Amino acid sequence: MVSKIKLTNFRKFKNLELDIDKDIVVLHGDNAVGKSTILEAISLITNGKSPWANTDEYISTDQEEETPFCRIEITTKEDGEEKTYSYYKTNSRRILKINDKNTPIKKFFEETASTIFNPEKIEILMISPSKRREFLDEIISTLDYEYVEILKQFRKVLKQRNAYLKKLSKQFYDKGIIARNDPQLNFWTNEFLKSAEKIQEMRERLSKRIATKKLKVEYIKSNGDIALEDALENSKKRDIATGYTNVGPHRDDWELINGMNIKKYGSRGEKRLSIGKLIFEVQKIMKKELGYYPILLLDDIASELDKKNTAEIFKPEILNKQQTFITIIDYKNLPKEVVKNAQLIDLN
Amino acid sequence: MVSKIKLTNFRKFKNLELDIDKDIVVLHGDNAVGKSTILEAISLITNGKSPWANTDEYISTDQEEETPFCRIEITTKEDGEEKTYSYYKTNSRRILKINDKNTPIKKFFEETASTIFNPEKIEILMISPSKRREFLDEIISTLDYEYVEILKQFRKVLKQRNAYLKKLSKQFYDKGIIARNDPQLNFWTNEFLKSAEKIQEMRERLSKRIATKKLKVEYIKSNGDIALEDALENSKKRDIATGYTNVGPHRDDWELINGMNIKKYGSRGEKRLSIGKLIFEVQKIMKKELGYYPILLLDDIASELDKKNTAEIFKPEILNKQQTFITIIDYKNLPKEVVKNAQLIDLN
Repeated sequence: MVSKIKLTNFRKFKNLELDIDKDIVVLHGDNAVGKSTILEAISLITNGKSPWANTDEYISTDQEEETPFCRIEITTKEDGEEKTYSYYKTNSRRILKINDKNTPIKKFFEETASTIFNPEKIEILMISPSKRREFLDEIISTLDYEYVEILKQFRKVLKQRNAYLKKLSKQFYDKGIIARNDPQLNFWTNEFLKSAEKIQEMRERLSKRIATKKLKVEYIKSNGDIALEDALENSKKRDIATGYTNVGPHRDDWELINGMNIKKYGSRGEKRLSIGKLIFEVQKIMKKELGYYPILLLDDIASELDKKNTAEIFKPEILNKQQTFITIIDYKNLPKEVVKNAQLIDLN
Repeated sequence: MVSKIKLTNFRKFKNLELDIDKDIVVLHGDNAVGKSTILEAISLITNGKSPWANTDEYISTDQEEETPFCRIEITTKEDGEEKTYSYYKTNSRRILKINDKNTPIKKFFEETASTIFNPEKIEILMISPSKRREFLDEIISTLDYEYVEILKQFRKVLKQRNAYLKKLSKQFYDKGIIARNDPQLNFWTNEFLKSAEKIQEMRERLSKRIATKKLKVEYIKSNGDIALEDALENSKKRDIATGYTNVGPHRDDWELINGMNIKKYGSRGEKRLSIGKLIFEVQKIMKKELGYYPILLLDDIASELDKKNTAEIFKPEILNKQQTFITIIDYKNLPKEVVKNAQLIDLN
């Protein structure tokens, strides 16, 4: 359990210190008081990256130091034992320490984890197929380190197959020739299949695992019901004409179905609720595989939900599983049960 | 003023009839009761397109008819005179009528207009540069029909310049030759400049016009401070190597600045508020140019705003300008002044 959070030069916080003594923490206050920023800091120190900034923009810019920096520190308490994690960052370097001792990246981040759920995440998952693929890939990578290597291998081979297709494409347009059985293309196709089939299989398996009885996650292969090998053969001419690989895991997608296609026909509330349910299923899987529930960060989630759906998201059996940080403008919009058991932190 | 709305087979509504008698209309109710759907219908019949569906998915699918269809009908009342607009749509055809008489597209949509403001719009404007360019282009097109032609011309020329660059690119990779002064490339560059400079100029002008004292809209040219002609000359080698045009209006962007870059450093509330302010400025410009204020559709806008900012969005001097439709889960979250003057429609 996180028992203390300290931020220095982190976005709007020059110095912030919060003592935490409950498993449910409600950060409440007006717009722009820094609610989401605190969740961003927790996400950074537990997962190594910000849920929304790609660069170092969270380092406060109004510092007088020659080298602007920020520092996040969290203290955890588990069975009476305290541990302090600190994350120091400048534009060019990052120093990670546990109990004041420099710690390698892998060890630092393998001890803690968090899952964030916020309105941006829902919009992005609804808009972008590549973000949907990334969503699955990130979970599988956390559960199975081997998958990181498979993905790397896949991206490398895809790049090389595409480069070779571009060459063939040029030949085709210059001379009108398509080699029906080009040995080098066959080689890259075989290499491609090795990792591609594994990725599709693993993503498909996870899709089934995170689905619930009412909420199906339908993994949609770009090759449809046809074996990927055959689909690649069928798309050969097209691949050569366009100069890239038209089928494979880099073109797959998934959909959420609860009787209907939620992306197409769901209201904003239904979208939010369904993605929430997926994320809670992911928490359960994480617990099974990692041995602990990641910290849950619920950022402004209640805002577009009615009472019934708010109660659905903030169910005790979900919240009681892990430490949960909730941001909200007015805590009175949370179910009373939640407020009763929570530590309320007013940021106004 | 819209005085009646009738929907048939439109998404979840088999048959819906609403009588409207106020300038502020608050549609309230739980998630998924169809609040946003009503705004979507108004947007479709006034602007010709849905703010979120690209296809005909708003046509209700559970019909027994051989040809599924939907119908939207609104009646407006202006100085005692009533007019009925009807929009009938199947997968293959659209019939537009005013007072039961078939009406050409241009005439139909030039009489009415609406502006929608919803959480998706904010997210998309924050995520995608192409959507940000589109935002400006749509406004300019509404104000100045000539701009539609300039854009068309620009897209055509860009396509042709890129096609020619691809040819040169091939030559370069095959034979290592870059023609320093290729006459055909020069021709396309000149054609490109004709519309490109005009587009940048018009977008820049609009950016200044929709900005307020506190909220700047900074138009960012991909050619920076350099004249576009010179920037194209400088990027010639790169254009040939990559096979496409690297600078021009299709690569420009804009940012919102209120002392800081809102996309980078703003909280979700600040983002929402700033885009709202832009949209209200656009309303004013529309009034000046079109002679009337477009109907304002505020879809779930209050949900992530605190009291102060909610009051900021729902100011009487903004709401009183045009007919405004507001969706919200609980109308008690609106300022009392607004509720007092509004027609409340309970969709539960």
